[in-house]
Amino acid sequence: MFELHPAFPPTSHAVGELALCHARLQADARYAWIVLIPRIAGARELEDLSANDRAALMEEVVRAGAAVRAVGEASGRPVEKLNVGQLGNLTPQLHVHVVGRRADDPAWPGPVWGVGAAEPYADEPLRAALHAARVNLGL
Amino acid sequence: MFELHPAFPPTSHAVGELALCHARLQADARYAWIVLIPRIAGARELEDLSANDRAALMEEVVRAGAAVRAVGEASGRPVEKLNVGQLGNLTPQLHVHVVGRRADDPAWPGPVWGVGAAEPYADEPLRAALHAARVNLGL
Repeated sequence: MFELHPAFPPTSHAVGELALCHARLQADARYAWIVLIPRIAGARELEDLSANDRAALMEEVVRAGAAVRAVGEASGRPVEKLNVGQLGNLTPQLHVHVVGRRADDPAWPGPVWGVGAAEPYADEPLRAALHAARVNLGL
Repeated sequence: MFELHPAFPPTSHAVGELALCHARLQADARYAWIVLIPRIAGARELEDLSANDRAALMEEVVRAGAAVRAVGEASGRPVEKLNVGQLGNLTPQLHVHVVGRRADDPAWPGPVWGVGAAEPYADEPLRAALHAARVNLGL
């Protein structure tokens, strides 16, 4: 039985359910950033998924990339590059980060993980970001 | 016509050719680390590949993960966690990093990219790492 790891809710906002993954918006207004968590109990690495689920995950990563671009447009900061990362060194439940990057973002050109402190969204930008993500993902 | 970006040879060693990707061993003895470069001219993001090629890439990432574990065993430092990253902020040609992590590695638990300076392999450990990777990948 899949249960979301408790590390996710304090750091992200639920976007909705794709066929395989639970999708969340990272609670960090510095970046357009979606996290995908496959709803597969006990999965920690990609090798823990079936090949079918891995192919589905790849397609949901690409869809999340389009949604991240939509979030960037909604915030007035269009995405210039996508970064995809499956790390899980701190939170063991399998998850994939899809992050929109810009040459003027605070971590460029390095990776975003562990750089500085997250900036919470204000209410209206959060509403706009979640709306853009959901519309783009058909949710 | 696919041509390898010139940023790769100075920082990595050729492992061989998988069905989709050119595989390289990162020239950094601190980590068991393979880089996969799909041989698709002009690709920069996952969305630039066909869905078939993306599914093939995902399976080659999983195979590279097993090879990274074999490289870790060959070096006497077994891999504890896999990290997968598709960034490309500095080198625009689409490539995927598959990195073996350990709680005693110099970047743990953060990402490896941009942390410290690469440590070149000595001759014999390099030979052993390439051999382990190639045997594991059936090359």
